[in-house]
Amino acid sequence: MATIFSRIAAGEIPSYKVAESEDFFAFLDINPMVEGHTLVIPRKVEADYIFDLDDETYQGLTAFAKKVAEAIKRAIPCKRVGVAVLGMEVPHTHIHLVPLQKESDMDFRKEKLQLSPERFQEIAAAIAAEFKA
Amino acid sequence: MATIFSRIAAGEIPSYKVAESEDFFAFLDINPMVEGHTLVIPRKVEADYIFDLDDETYQGLTAFAKKVAEAIKRAIPCKRVGVAVLGMEVPHTHIHLVPLQKESDMDFRKEKLQLSPERFQEIAAAIAAEFKA
Repeated sequence: MATIFSRIAAGEIPSYKVAESEDFFAFLDINPMVEGHTLVIPRKVEADYIFDLDDETYQGLTAFAKKVAEAIKRAIPCKRVGVAVLGMEVPHTHIHLVPLQKESDMDFRKEKLQLSPERFQEIAAAIAAEFKA
Repeated sequence: MATIFSRIAAGEIPSYKVAESEDFFAFLDINPMVEGHTLVIPRKVEADYIFDLDDETYQGLTAFAKKVAEAIKRAIPCKRVGVAVLGMEVPHTHIHLVPLQKESDMDFRKEKLQLSPERFQEIAAAIAAEFKA
């Protein structure tokens, strides 16, 4: 069954894309903790739990996430890019990449940022420009 | 310079070990969010930021973390094992693996569990027994 994330990766639902490859896709979280908060997904829903992915897809996903994180770090002022995988809200494996100034920036409970479509677009373009496939 | 984590991996500082390989080591977080909260590290401190690791070490670390997560899931009652990498408190790359019943179990701000040495040992032994290298 197509999840909202596979429809985003297929371009059927619009998103602020930051990077893509044949098998993987990265786009801005629409409810970001901080500017630059990105989700990285496999295009196909093989599993909604990351550790149920086959080893090849899992390794491909984590390798792709590393490249996206490097682009985020170049584009967004931050000390480093944090990683989180929780994944109980959308049944499609996804990795959160979150630019951090301090550890407490990674907080799933705090109120999410409200950004304009123009600001989302600027951020996505800035990260995309730094992405090296 | 040897970090506290490289000294743990070398056995110079005691820990509740759950798994190890030639290059990687997993042990219980001494300040756990929940029972079974585990840290996965490379033995050598190549970088304190996960995305500064060379690709081979990064891929080895994430592959090892998957095996440890599978062991945790078999040993500890949970819906899934969450992943987080923040890493600003100890300058040695480490991946948090946290058994989750719900997303809010992954909360770095909440008060940590207090467990007895005996309980830590039981949990470590239960995960270690499920680890498949």
